[in-house]
Amino acid sequence: MGLVNTAFPPDALLKLRYGNLGICHTRYSTTGISELQNCQPFVVDTLHGKIAVAHNGELVNAHALRKKVMRHGVGLSTCSDSELITQLLALNPPLEEQDAPDWVARIKNLMTETPTSYSLLVMFKDVIYAVRDPYGNRPLCIGRLVPISKLHSTGAEEEDTEGWVVSSESCSFQSIGAKYYREVLPGEIVQISKHGVKSLSVVPRPEGDLPAFCIFEYVYFARPDSIFEGQMVYTVRQRCGRQLAIEAPTDADVVSTVPESATPAALGYAQQSGLPYIEVLCKNRYVGRTFIQPNTRLRQLGVAKKFGALTDNFAGKRVVLIDDSIVRGNTISPIIKLLKEAGATEVHIRVASPPLRFPCYMGINIPTKEELIANKPEFQNIAGYIGAASVQYLTVEGLVSAVQQGIASHQDDERIGSSSKSSKPVGHCTACLTGKYPVELEW
Amino acid sequence: MGLVNTAFPPDALLKLRYGNLGICHTRYSTTGISELQNCQPFVVDTLHGKIAVAHNGELVNAHALRKKVMRHGVGLSTCSDSELITQLLALNPPLEEQDAPDWVARIKNLMTETPTSYSLLVMFKDVIYAVRDPYGNRPLCIGRLVPISKLHSTGAEEEDTEGWVVSSESCSFQSIGAKYYREVLPGEIVQISKHGVKSLSVVPRPEGDLPAFCIFEYVYFARPDSIFEGQMVYTVRQRCGRQLAIEAPTDADVVSTVPESATPAALGYAQQSGLPYIEVLCKNRYVGRTFIQPNTRLRQLGVAKKFGALTDNFAGKRVVLIDDSIVRGNTISPIIKLLKEAGATEVHIRVASPPLRFPCYMGINIPTKEELIANKPEFQNIAGYIGAASVQYLTVEGLVSAVQQGIASHQDDERIGSSSKSSKPVGHCTACLTGKYPVELEW
Amino acid sequence: MGLVNTAFPPDALLKLRYGNLGICHTRYSTTGISELQNCQPFVVDTLHGKIAVAHNGELVNAHALRKKVMRHGVGLSTCSDSELITQLLALNPPLEEQDAPDWVARIKNLMTETPTSYSLLVMFKDVIYAVRDPYGNRPLCIGRLVPISKLHSTGAEEEDTEGWVVSSESCSFQSIGAKYYREVLPGEIVQISKHGVKSLSVVPRPEGDLPAFCIFEYVYFARPDSIFEGQMVYTVRQRCGRQLAIEAPTDADVVSTVPESATPAALGYAQQSGLPYIEVLCKNRYVGRTFIQPNTRLRQLGVAKKFGALTDNFAGKRVVLIDDSIVRGNTISPIIKLLKEAGATEVHIRVASPPLRFPCYMGINIPTKEELIANKPEFQNIAGYIGAASVQYLTVEGLVSAVQQGIASHQDDERIGSSSKSSKPVGHCTACLTGKYPVELEW
Amino acid sequence: MGLVNTAFPPDALLKLRYGNLGICHTRYSTTGISELQNCQPFVVDTLHGKIAVAHNGELVNAHALRKKVMRHGVGLSTCSDSELITQLLALNPPLEEQDAPDWVARIKNLMTETPTSYSLLVMFKDVIYAVRDPYGNRPLCIGRLVPISKLHSTGAEEEDTEGWVVSSESCSFQSIGAKYYREVLPGEIVQISKHGVKSLSVVPRPEGDLPAFCIFEYVYFARPDSIFEGQMVYTVRQRCGRQLAIEAPTDADVVSTVPESATPAALGYAQQSGLPYIEVLCKNRYVGRTFIQPNTRLRQLGVAKKFGALTDNFAGKRVVLIDDSIVRGNTISPIIKLLKEAGATEVHIRVASPPLRFPCYMGINIPTKEELIANKPEFQNIAGYIGAASVQYLTVEGLVSAVQQGIASHQDDERIGSSSKSSKPVGHCTACLTGKYPVELEW
Repeated sequence: MGLVNTAFPPDALLKLRYGNLGICHTRYSTTGISELQNCQPFVVDTLHGKIAVAHNGELVNAHALRKKVMRHGVGLSTCSDSELITQLLALNPPLEEQDAPDWVARIKNLMTETPTSYSLLVMFKDVIYAVRDPYGNRPLCIGRLVPISKLHSTGAEEEDTEGWVVSSESCSFQSIGAKYYREVLPGEIVQISKHGVKSLSVVPRPEGDLPAFCIFEYVYFARPDSIFEGQMVYTVRQRCGRQLAIEAPTDADVVSTVPESATPAALGYAQQSGLPYIEVLCKNRYVGRTFIQPNTRLRQLGVAKKFGALTDNFAGKRVVLIDDSIVRGNTISPIIKLLKEAGATEVHIRVASPPLRFPCYMGINIPTKEELIANKPEFQNIAGYIGAASVQYLTVEGLVSAVQQGIASHQDDERIGSSSKSSKPVGHCTACLTGKYPVELEW
Repeated sequence: MGLVNTAFPPDALLKLRYGNLGICHTRYSTTGISELQNCQPFVVDTLHGKIAVAHNGELVNAHALRKKVMRHGVGLSTCSDSELITQLLALNPPLEEQDAPDWVARIKNLMTETPTSYSLLVMFKDVIYAVRDPYGNRPLCIGRLVPISKLHSTGAEEEDTEGWVVSSESCSFQSIGAKYYREVLPGEIVQISKHGVKSLSVVPRPEGDLPAFCIFEYVYFARPDSIFEGQMVYTVRQRCGRQLAIEAPTDADVVSTVPESATPAALGYAQQSGLPYIEVLCKNRYVGRTFIQPNTRLRQLGVAKKFGALTDNFAGKRVVLIDDSIVRGNTISPIIKLLKEAGATEVHIRVASPPLRFPCYMGINIPTKEELIANKPEFQNIAGYIGAASVQYLTVEGLVSAVQQGIASHQDDERIGSSSKSSKPVGHCTACLTGKYPVELEW
Repeated sequence: MGLVNTAFPPDALLKLRYGNLGICHTRYSTTGISELQNCQPFVVDTLHGKIAVAHNGELVNAHALRKKVMRHGVGLSTCSDSELITQLLALNPPLEEQDAPDWVARIKNLMTETPTSYSLLVMFKDVIYAVRDPYGNRPLCIGRLVPISKLHSTGAEEEDTEGWVVSSESCSFQSIGAKYYREVLPGEIVQISKHGVKSLSVVPRPEGDLPAFCIFEYVYFARPDSIFEGQMVYTVRQRCGRQLAIEAPTDADVVSTVPESATPAALGYAQQSGLPYIEVLCKNRYVGRTFIQPNTRLRQLGVAKKFGALTDNFAGKRVVLIDDSIVRGNTISPIIKLLKEAGATEVHIRVASPPLRFPCYMGINIPTKEELIANKPEFQNIAGYIGAASVQYLTVEGLVSAVQQGIASHQDDERIGSSSKSSKPVGHCTACLTGKYPVELEW
Repeated sequence: MGLVNTAFPPDALLKLRYGNLGICHTRYSTTGISELQNCQPFVVDTLHGKIAVAHNGELVNAHALRKKVMRHGVGLSTCSDSELITQLLALNPPLEEQDAPDWVARIKNLMTETPTSYSLLVMFKDVIYAVRDPYGNRPLCIGRLVPISKLHSTGAEEEDTEGWVVSSESCSFQSIGAKYYREVLPGEIVQISKHGVKSLSVVPRPEGDLPAFCIFEYVYFARPDSIFEGQMVYTVRQRCGRQLAIEAPTDADVVSTVPESATPAALGYAQQSGLPYIEVLCKNRYVGRTFIQPNTRLRQLGVAKKFGALTDNFAGKRVVLIDDSIVRGNTISPIIKLLKEAGATEVHIRVASPPLRFPCYMGINIPTKEELIANKPEFQNIAGYIGAASVQYLTVEGLVSAVQQGIASHQDDERIGSSSKSSKPVGHCTACLTGKYPVELEW
């Protein structure tokens, strides 16, 4: 429990015995219960050795699958999908004591039983399978570990490590000295072993269904230097800012950002609109990210502590403030108040994504429908409610276009030999914005 | 992980929601691996609600049972018997979605599949079953929770709590304001619910087999104020001391104890022999119990820090020092040295139990055969090896007699209506002393 | 010891008894030894009650003063200047049991004994004196605490607190709901009590000496929203960037920043040069600030983990990268490497401050002369050494001009009635850049 | 703060640089405030190097001495006597920069200024002075460190350490491999340096005053294996038990102890009275010592958890229960209740010390006069109040006789050549029992 560097102190890591395969998982609880027992990877012992599973996502038909597993007489010790997946892999078909099981066939089998959402790492004694659901709802990508070049000024010895790594976000590769290689495709099973990386199979979606990668990864979750579908997240956000400037121009003096996540969109808005880009807020380094704080009141108090107003930059001016998203509406309101008290004559809010209206059942911890500002009566007069001179959101069409125009132009660069590039379909999950879920939800 | 008062700080306990049933477990690792995942109780969700199991003991056929469960396609996530038991209860016979399962029948079924050793608490939504294996190898007893009488000098409010508690050792009852009620019988299933305590069934042993309660609980493990088979552990230890004085008299001046666990035996020895009882060592309060410390070297250093010599009590005298058991022989040697340096002219060691020679496969963490002093060549000249003037052990017959003579005389007091008192067989597991295990071991 | 929120957990704060005066201190060790005993404020008991002292700075003649105090027979229990100051206040002149001492006269006396550097809070039973040394080397400013406006959505009750606060940096006022009021002047003693704020005296500098506020506060240490000498730090940094563009123009495609501290300078450089401003690096939120890390190797490894490259923004382009300062030269080198590996064709470094060459004896933890890159042989070929296409620094004159041009224009706004505005002298301590210390150093 | 093994983790100890002198201190707060700033040893820097002082005791004229020091202009940063002592040593007479001070003369000087109570270790660069006040109120003794003999079974390397150690209690010597050498005499200054141990001086008491070693060390505080005035504490306690049997015989069946501290007295009582000694309570190893717990309620609840009743040993019998002291009367009451509920027909309390009636101003943390049971109205009917069949205390004369009869007989063994054995006066501080303080108290 806790942040990685406190949960795994150096002496805990030193106790790990030498091995050449490993999986791990950092859990950002999506069910409100952050309990030790739900930690991943989940490991079970079977007649044919151990299975370890790390899972990003949320199985849309988890409830039905739990029933199914329990009907086989298995008691489930956690409420995690990871345990469910381990038991499904062991149960179906029954394991024979004599014959080694065909784990890949079992994984394929599992993929036909649950359409989405999951990016999985399934580890056995000497092989890891990296698996992405047929809709590609959650990200998964592969990196190549290269030897770290020698550090010049110290005598530290280093091992020349080579190998392969898999991660939800490509941004993690750089900090361990790995290079982005490619994405795991929707429905693909990739084998990683001492023989290297090998694509084994691509389980198809139902006829006519489009891929459904979560569009909110582009908008909010991913780190800007991550790469999805061949494009850098930062670039998509900048395009969203440009599109927003087209859709929602403002009569103002300066453009600025709610640091740091809205900065690419703000720069895009400034470039498109021709208004000068300035900074209006500086972050207090010693306070954490808003999204992680636990309750409404703390979040509100937190904002006052989080930002300093760079008064002289905007006193007496009309400010267009770009935010990446307005979820509950609690954060933006004290910021506007802060800017006005510090001398801004008008504060116009432009949001580089459409309003969130619907819950996510596929692994993203969106507040309940009732908590979303877009579903509250106050949304009718959102500008008045939060104290802004005006508020405008990017349209769903605008967002989708900003996301997808980069994919077409980049597809030629992808290094996946086996996929026919020209016919590659494009689609995204916009369920939280539109209520259109990629698959029918079973409960 | 850790001691109860650190593992459960007050605010963690305050978070517990109100309920009227509960089980808990303090684990003293018997497998050398003290891991979080093996913590008990183990809880699984089934088609018919949750099962929680707390287990004291070690299933002699665990390996075969694990195979059996895994052959059903269940992956096992821990190496604990508790998980195995939950899965066995859920699997056999298959649960039906429509019909509520007969949990008691399943528990009986489980008891026919594994003879020993287990004392179990099995909790469902509104009932706990207290279960002891047919051989009664591990202890289990029932207490009645009575309202705590008011404290006189403070204004503290108290709830008048009434109910039932079950524990391995009766000594725990007093500290929570409960009274000893009776033992769970070998093979008995006792139901505890809002309707009170009810004996449901007694699963028999194979024809001709005697009960096999662990004799080492009397010798070493149990707290002296605990009650087993109708007799107080302290009294048994005192009888062992008397028996030892008969079997191994000494020409010496004073009798003393290795505090604190050997004190009842030393007092018994003194009474029987007529030698005066004195104290030769005082404990350093700030150092923990020898048995718990992790390695040989720390244990040896620990002894020097653990005791102070009460020099003036024995300088110039011949001392009979009573110990309850000599397992590895590391502890007694520096104590003898200490006493001799402080002026004892002779130190005779009398041990109030026979030498340990065999491993326990039923839940007691006895060192490996190789580590046991009784299996080492040095044992031939044990007195010389540890620096004593002489060393003598209680015989197995002497121990069994000291234990069993108290049972006959107390059986009439037992309040178990359904058992026929006159024919109650008596027997104990002495496997660690004799190598005779109560059941055949399957591996 | 540790960060404020860990050193003072909520329950420790709740134990504070109600009062209406208080001082506190966060110590950033300048002597390499971060020991508990050197924590401030330092409190002593005297014949006339307690004195508490919090000190920002470093007394240039501390050694001689320690000798003086010890010659009076006082033993000093710490190596902190704060203890020295408390003892000096108590010793000189000797306290009389009958007469209440004139603490203000004693403070003035102290100020004649030590010219710099100190900003002090000296607390007695019912009054705090805020004191700044005659050279004004360390910052100190006053804020007015205003009642926090009600939070709209929660029922939390708040006290309407009014009062005065004093701080090294004005940025701290906002997060507690206070407003910037004014600076304490060089040499000024300001009294704070229940009667409010009152300027008591201004101790003059020696004839002809200029003020010597630390110019490195503008360059590096202060938070950008802090106000010194009537101007916002951010604005000064932006002017440094503009000045740098004039002094060191570059033939390149884009301008960027080493986030986050160099951003104002980078925006200034972009505005002046006409080159587009882009972002090239994104920060990894989970890694701390470089300056704080303890040793060379950790700092180097840290950089790889600290930043992600926003590849698509600059691949194939010539980048001007603005940094606020290059102290040891360890940080910038791996960043340049990172950018070049990610596709930058050229990386030109422009530093918005002059090279650091001299130690600071006035409270700033600058590395030893030997560690400073500007004093190493490699500095002759700094571009080659760090892998840049070119490196240029701001001149001392450029920095001083960027700092001082804002003071002249702002002086009319200052609300200090007693100072004659037109004749106010301007000067700064540039010792770390030029070796010209404001006072002669005694050792 | 905290226990030694948590306050000084291994890595903190490893950081200590090699040295050949050291002093340390474990503080058991006697003022109710257990603050970090009052930790000892207290160290100050002077014109002639550092002075470190560790102090056991409480200066009876501390208040006047503080005034005196502060009149010299010294501010005192703690409320500890240790700081006061360091400053007194530095102040009087004034230190000269040129001449090395005569520290021994200064220590003597200090001893004339404050009569009691203190046992001190005063450390300078290359010498430690062990000092005991002229009344010898607090203990202090010297041990000789001998090489630890090789451990047989491990390959651990050891240093052969030789040297001298000083401690309040001799029991600490054994656990570090040292042997008891002798006591520091009342008023003696002993020098410890690389030249060994040397007695420098014995500062006399005022004509006619007797020594005043704290008699409560024998009764309660000291560990039973410690040696004071040539006799083992255990032996004195046993004699107190014998004396109690003479003064307060009982018509009962068995004698027992409140473990563990009253056991020697109980064995003495049993031997003298001829009644059999049994055990009635067993300690719960996991609960701490009563005296240390912080408030009345916790202490009361604690008793229930602290002891198990060894029912079978005393059911149906009349018990004489020996306690070493009854201070507040909170502890004994629930124990009596426990024994009676477990079947004792009568419980007679015999206390092996007289009632505590007066506060201690010499370093022992005795509760306030109001809290002492002997000063409460309930004391008139103490037996009824605590639920005993009868209660009797040892007389002051009985205690003094039990303590002093051993001193006469042992004095010949003492190895202090310079003291004239035959005329050695004997006396003890019994202030907490009689109100007769060894010196007049100044406040």
